[in-house]
Amino acid sequence: MSTQIKVQKLAGFRDYFAEDVKIREYVINTFKKVFEKYGYEPLETPALENSNIFVGELGDEAEKLFYRFKDQGGRDIMLKYDVMTPMCRTVAENINNIVFPYKRYQIQNVWRSEKPQKGRFREFTQCDADTIGSSSVICDAEFIQMGIEALTNIGFKEFRANINNRKLLSGIIQFAGASEKEFIPICISVDKLPKIGRDLVKKELIEKRKISPEVSEKILDVITLTGKTNELLGKLKKQLKDIPVAIEAIDELETIFNYFRTIKLDEKFYRFTPFIARGLAYYTGPVWEFEILEGEVGSVAGCGRYDNIIGKFVGKEVAATGGSFGIERLVEVIKSRKMINFSSTIAKVLVTIFDKDLFNNSLIVADELRKNNISTILYPVINEKLDKQLKYANKKNIPYVIIIGPEEVSNGKLVLKDMKTGEQKTLIIEELIKQLNH
Amino acid sequence: MSTQIKVQKLAGFRDYFAEDVKIREYVINTFKKVFEKYGYEPLETPALENSNIFVGELGDEAEKLFYRFKDQGGRDIMLKYDVMTPMCRTVAENINNIVFPYKRYQIQNVWRSEKPQKGRFREFTQCDADTIGSSSVICDAEFIQMGIEALTNIGFKEFRANINNRKLLSGIIQFAGASEKEFIPICISVDKLPKIGRDLVKKELIEKRKISPEVSEKILDVITLTGKTNELLGKLKKQLKDIPVAIEAIDELETIFNYFRTIKLDEKFYRFTPFIARGLAYYTGPVWEFEILEGEVGSVAGCGRYDNIIGKFVGKEVAATGGSFGIERLVEVIKSRKMINFSSTIAKVLVTIFDKDLFNNSLIVADELRKNNISTILYPVINEKLDKQLKYANKKNIPYVIIIGPEEVSNGKLVLKDMKTGEQKTLIIEELIKQLNH
Repeated sequence: MSTQIKVQKLAGFRDYFAEDVKIREYVINTFKKVFEKYGYEPLETPALENSNIFVGELGDEAEKLFYRFKDQGGRDIMLKYDVMTPMCRTVAENINNIVFPYKRYQIQNVWRSEKPQKGRFREFTQCDADTIGSSSVICDAEFIQMGIEALTNIGFKEFRANINNRKLLSGIIQFAGASEKEFIPICISVDKLPKIGRDLVKKELIEKRKISPEVSEKILDVITLTGKTNELLGKLKKQLKDIPVAIEAIDELETIFNYFRTIKLDEKFYRFTPFIARGLAYYTGPVWEFEILEGEVGSVAGCGRYDNIIGKFVGKEVAATGGSFGIERLVEVIKSRKMINFSSTIAKVLVTIFDKDLFNNSLIVADELRKNNISTILYPVINEKLDKQLKYANKKNIPYVIIIGPEEVSNGKLVLKDMKTGEQKTLIIEELIKQLNH
Repeated sequence: MSTQIKVQKLAGFRDYFAEDVKIREYVINTFKKVFEKYGYEPLETPALENSNIFVGELGDEAEKLFYRFKDQGGRDIMLKYDVMTPMCRTVAENINNIVFPYKRYQIQNVWRSEKPQKGRFREFTQCDADTIGSSSVICDAEFIQMGIEALTNIGFKEFRANINNRKLLSGIIQFAGASEKEFIPICISVDKLPKIGRDLVKKELIEKRKISPEVSEKILDVITLTGKTNELLGKLKKQLKDIPVAIEAIDELETIFNYFRTIKLDEKFYRFTPFIARGLAYYTGPVWEFEILEGEVGSVAGCGRYDNIIGKFVGKEVAATGGSFGIERLVEVIKSRKMINFSSTIAKVLVTIFDKDLFNNSLIVADELRKNNISTILYPVINEKLDKQLKYANKKNIPYVIIIGPEEVSNGKLVLKDMKTGEQKTLIIEELIKQLNH
């Protein structure tokens, strides 16, 4: 055909066929169910937003990735970069109608013009939940509980929430004699501790962050203290007793760990890790991540309290806490570990058509199966060789095929063929339905 | 705050809060279930596509509505205008892996830069299902059956599939003596018959379409023939016996109506309407729409066979048939008729906190309710007046509140307050769970 259109999807984007859609749906629905059990409400915001809510808020590195353009009315608009910023916009626009604390979850696509590379895509799904309008760290503890429950329900067994408090880090930095403006650079270096080890972090603190060797040493000494949660909190409390912000942080952490003990949360699922900082500058209190253990998976969610963000949109302080799971990351692990198997096809059975005269018989059987909630494809072509119809079932991985020839019609029966074993049975329809619904 | 960001969502876009998300989910999930019962597989394609798959394909009016821009790599890209075109792109890109007939459904957002007006939005959800790679009209009949089942399952009672065949219209136009190139303009005028009546259609045919009065009259005479389906098909067969394309069309329609009779489909749900043409130029065979009766709702889905579209992408003919439901249209009707009621809140119960000492007791109760799948909000603030906590439940429309004071703790009981009636009961937790799960 001379008019053929050249077609290619954009680099960094994906089509999802049946199996992928189903795995994604399974993960997303598991999160939804858990979030709703804790009273979190769904929110959906548009794909497009006025650029001004994002610009100047997320840093230069983020802005390089914006899908930003002018619409036909000349408006400066962009595809949403995250779901958290539009949530802030929504809260500001509806400040008089929303009842606080507002618990919302939001599972939607976002777009970032990243360099396409393995496991990194330009369209991906963020799975966020947050409590807006409460400064109580009970909300922080609750999010961690929900996250553990969701990951468990999805099928993960070996994972952990690594928990800290930005205020504790702030206190440790004060205690060591560094200045507040060095806080974020120090956090970024210290966060690398589990990856690169103490010596390299120290080197980075001294050479890159220009922190004195003595101060660096002091920070690292405190931050690498070990022990069981309560014991470790006790050690820190003693050491940092003159730093009010640190004591405040430890009190908050004690509230969170008390929450976990009260609900008898398995200790293997959480750990107090004084060096965890999380990358984002805006966290103000507890911070945590969910780490899938075994394999090189690492963190699948970044979370924490951010009491100063929504205020920029609303004009008055609105406390908030929550986190964001990466659906693609989880799906990747599920698929590579074959944790869950979804069929590449939806249909359970193919009803073949013997010939034109027996079409109605096949149609009635297909209809009866569907009425019994059995996913059924009726082969759509009359006068196709049976062999070709069986090949279709085979190629499509449809597990069962039904054949209704003249003999079956006269006996009021039908033939059920198991495509895996090749086994054939002659049954009445009631038996067939019972067997397929099993 | 001096740094406050001015915030406003874009005109023509919407935020969906809990109630709207839930109604939309209900409608979408109903379609999914029905489509999957018929063996249709989900497909999801990216929001962004290379513009070339849309440009030049959909007409000038459509192109005015494109969200089209250059990405950071200078690529000419756009937000998807419909879900059908990316499906064609996917089929072309995967032509060697897809097993045909390929039955796929796709429920995704599309973007059109329409003038914002009542009921028209710039981001909306298309709900498509199609059979690709089969010219059998059994697939057309199956789609109509699925549509009727989905609308019934959603809760609609009075609606109808209006069915015709483009080839019949083509035959009638031939029979009347008009030329093939006048086909699309005549279709567009004739399609208005139920809205503006015979006289105005005739006027439009003569004045706007430059069809002679005699030809116009002859077209209208045939097209407005009435009668029960079979009787009407008989009349047309007789009248158009010398027009092969018309006879072909009538044969196809007979196959479709035979399908419906075989599965005993209630006749109120479908009608043979020889004047229905549907707006899009690309239909090649059966066409139909789903019309919600009562009220000024009109069509909620445009559907038909389009055997010449996918070929432009693939380079060889690929037959296809299916249709597109408008989710927003359906949701609007459901909401305005109050057909289904979803609560504006997700939580069924609020567990209050009496004081600091009894926090753990409240937490344990909340945890127990959640373990029993009861959506529960634990009030997150310690030392808040009970009155304020009750007000929160009230404002949020949470139906039940639980109070656990010192007396309840010593009796091993708790107080359940029904927020609608104000009634209070003192119960043990097992009774509470039984009652809330009822």
